[in-house]
Amino acid sequence: MDDVRQMDFFFNPRSVAVVGASRKVMKAGHTIFRNFAENKRRGIFRGELYPVNPNERVVLGFKCYPSVTKIVGEVELVIVVVPAEIVPKIMEEAAVKGVKAAVIISGGFGEIGRHDLEKKVRTIAKDAGMRVLGPNCLGVFDPLTGVDMLFLPETKILTSGDEVITTPRPMSGRVAIVTQSGAFGVSALDYLAGKQVGISKFVSFGNKYDVAEPEMLRYLLHDKETQVILLYVESIESGRDFMEVARGITTKKPIVCLKLGRTEAGARATISHTGAIAGSDRIYDSIFTQVGIIRVGSMEEFFDVGKAFIFQQPAAGKNVAIITDAGGPGIMAADECESKGLNVGKFSNATIKRFEELKKKGKIPAFATNLNPLDLTGSVTSEMYEAGAKILLEDSEIHGIIVLGLHHTPGLLEDFVDRVAKLSKDYAKPMVACDIGETEMAMFIRSRFDKYGIPAYFSPEDAARAMAALVKYGLYLKKKGCFEQYLKSFQELAKK
Amino acid sequence: MDDVRQMDFFFNPRSVAVVGASRKVMKAGHTIFRNFAENKRRGIFRGELYPVNPNERVVLGFKCYPSVTKIVGEVELVIVVVPAEIVPKIMEEAAVKGVKAAVIISGGFGEIGRHDLEKKVRTIAKDAGMRVLGPNCLGVFDPLTGVDMLFLPETKILTSGDEVITTPRPMSGRVAIVTQSGAFGVSALDYLAGKQVGISKFVSFGNKYDVAEPEMLRYLLHDKETQVILLYVESIESGRDFMEVARGITTKKPIVCLKLGRTEAGARATISHTGAIAGSDRIYDSIFTQVGIIRVGSMEEFFDVGKAFIFQQPAAGKNVAIITDAGGPGIMAADECESKGLNVGKFSNATIKRFEELKKKGKIPAFATNLNPLDLTGSVTSEMYEAGAKILLEDSEIHGIIVLGLHHTPGLLEDFVDRVAKLSKDYAKPMVACDIGETEMAMFIRSRFDKYGIPAYFSPEDAARAMAALVKYGLYLKKKGCFEQYLKSFQELAKK
Repeated sequence: MDDVRQMDFFFNPRSVAVVGASRKVMKAGHTIFRNFAENKRRGIFRGELYPVNPNERVVLGFKCYPSVTKIVGEVELVIVVVPAEIVPKIMEEAAVKGVKAAVIISGGFGEIGRHDLEKKVRTIAKDAGMRVLGPNCLGVFDPLTGVDMLFLPETKILTSGDEVITTPRPMSGRVAIVTQSGAFGVSALDYLAGKQVGISKFVSFGNKYDVAEPEMLRYLLHDKETQVILLYVESIESGRDFMEVARGITTKKPIVCLKLGRTEAGARATISHTGAIAGSDRIYDSIFTQVGIIRVGSMEEFFDVGKAFIFQQPAAGKNVAIITDAGGPGIMAADECESKGLNVGKFSNATIKRFEELKKKGKIPAFATNLNPLDLTGSVTSEMYEAGAKILLEDSEIHGIIVLGLHHTPGLLEDFVDRVAKLSKDYAKPMVACDIGETEMAMFIRSRFDKYGIPAYFSPEDAARAMAALVKYGLYLKKKGCFEQYLKSFQELAKK
Repeated sequence: MDDVRQMDFFFNPRSVAVVGASRKVMKAGHTIFRNFAENKRRGIFRGELYPVNPNERVVLGFKCYPSVTKIVGEVELVIVVVPAEIVPKIMEEAAVKGVKAAVIISGGFGEIGRHDLEKKVRTIAKDAGMRVLGPNCLGVFDPLTGVDMLFLPETKILTSGDEVITTPRPMSGRVAIVTQSGAFGVSALDYLAGKQVGISKFVSFGNKYDVAEPEMLRYLLHDKETQVILLYVESIESGRDFMEVARGITTKKPIVCLKLGRTEAGARATISHTGAIAGSDRIYDSIFTQVGIIRVGSMEEFFDVGKAFIFQQPAAGKNVAIITDAGGPGIMAADECESKGLNVGKFSNATIKRFEELKKKGKIPAFATNLNPLDLTGSVTSEMYEAGAKILLEDSEIHGIIVLGLHHTPGLLEDFVDRVAKLSKDYAKPMVACDIGETEMAMFIRSRFDKYGIPAYFSPEDAARAMAALVKYGLYLKKKGCFEQYLKSFQELAKK
């Protein structure tokens, strides 16, 4: 059976047994079983569902089994949420039952020195040909199939008695999250849900006894829902395999990677967190560059770049134009672009001439500066934005455009977003946007850009970093001779 | 008359004439006059107020004068909002009237090559001993005195007919914003208003014909409302004067500086924006380090660090402890700390021993890692946070603490914030916090930390950068022998 079909047991199982399912609300086995039961009731999870627990007879209305071996029908996937000591026994029973795959949520294995338990689990699974995710992981969340192994409930009741959203599940979308750290994984879900970015798949590996990055990436390559892969890594053990798989994916789907342990302190912390040797950071850097993975330097950049790849195509080169109505933020963007290796060079004479003509006609302010950035000044109107952006879109020497639309200028209304966005649809040129501020209008402008598929950010530097990733990836695709092909499939996806 | 008294005319004038005051809602002269009129009605602006405009007889119920010379009473400050060509005439009349200070909001001077107008204005002002802010600036906003020269109205009416907040004014607080760029200035107001950070003074310089950074900084040194100075700079002309003044301030109040033009592209953009030569970026770096200015690398860091200085004291050294319930984010913070020159070293044997004792007593999880970061894992409770933080606060080798309190862990309720915050009050040791997420609980946790005066950030890297600024400033104060004195006045302020 190939890897892809095997991984499908985790994301789209026809039958699931939750071992450790419980009626006690504070137990992880309760939350996980309830996630499935509720998704089944809603018709999202369509598989068979079995609670397993020798101490319960019924869980949330489902007949409870003392062991997986007692279940009459087939069981493709077991989710194991019992103390580590019992896990080998559960795995043996699963093997007897002919279960295809197991997710071990439970911790208490190698990460606390229990290598004996680890060895037992590995051997049982290997002998039975069972694939294992975990242990010590959050498992899988798939908004389309209703598989939700997150033992963290969506809401929490505070000491005040108020119920609040704590671990939201994002809507269905095109970003896959592949994470070694469960804690970071749920933070990502919380962040993306709040920013209304949808996800295709979520998987947390934990100790990676069996399934690791290579299998998962291969699976996501073939997953039609996944357009962008966000990969959070503390250490990679199967380096050669990883490189080979990654190389095969990055020509088709971007992989954005947040790899921790950049510094000595970080590497030390990584070792005590995962027990794995983090490896020289430089080696990772060189590997990522070789195989076309876009490495980012911070959590914020991780999400920002992911958002850029969903909505925008990569850039065909590194010449970036900045259009702005505010001098200072224009400079901030230019600074960040250049420090990321982009070229914010002076516009061509032909383009400058076109701006001068606009000035003569009174279509942009006479005192606008137009060398790059194009600074339309505080006298800007929506029409001026449109006129300026059109020239930049038409200039074939420009490969990407950063739109800084600070809404504070008196003559600027929200329709500048519509005008610029509609115009950009006709050009195969990436565009990212920024508006600064945390009150009403700023949020409105950013979300308006987002809705048009122009990712908007809250600082000029964030926008510049997003553009830098689009350029970096574009140059990689060009080098590999895959740019046009990627563009074609990106455009087809965008039409959907 | 000394500089400080002269600057007071801008921030707290006893009488103001708005030249160019208008009834037309779309005019800058309307918005500015209305700001003053409304603040006067509310009893916030307590000075005399005169509209000046030969084409109007009454503006918003105030008798309008054809010229400042026709006003009967004294006029300390004129705000000039008329086309550039007329400005020299207005300035001559102001000189005749004996006006003390002028803010020239109007643009159209040196920045578009009209150096003739510039020269005229300078000469008139100098001969009359009048201080000038601008031209081409936003002027002053002071939430306490009701001086509000921002010609950008608080709300805007969209094409849909909806009215939305566009340029909010932050509440009164302790951060002064000194900015060359007006556009960036209003972005800052929008950001800080949204984040509920109050400001003491806001001043936008524009072309800086007369009043520039040195006078303004000197004024803010003596301003009791101002505790932290956020300085946005594109170029500094009066270098020697600036250095001298800054040196005298930074031992008493932190100056956080965002200086643009880090790169060649940025420097080029700066020149075309302000017409000034930006100077080698390295020279600025060296100057800032010498005089104790905290330079930041991005807009976000600018605000984040400002917030840190309002609430937290500087660190007495560079040893930083991280306490977390999530391994990955702990590593992110460690990485960023180390790349900023902080020391996230292994805890002392004595401290590690204390953690081991807590484990034996079951007061923190047995499998917590406790070398630094202290990772309390997903099994954390509020009591464990308190117990862990107490040991770190008591360890005199640790100079600052980063609290990563990811709220997703099942056993963690909001009272961990209260416990940690109350504990930290008894120790003179800076603390910053982070929770990740954009939905309900994350925002709630961050704002709860903020309310206790522990600045909270949305990424581990942001928190680390804030701590890095507290360390950098602390080391500067130590070097200058001013640490204890600063601490004393900081603690007195905090009591208020």
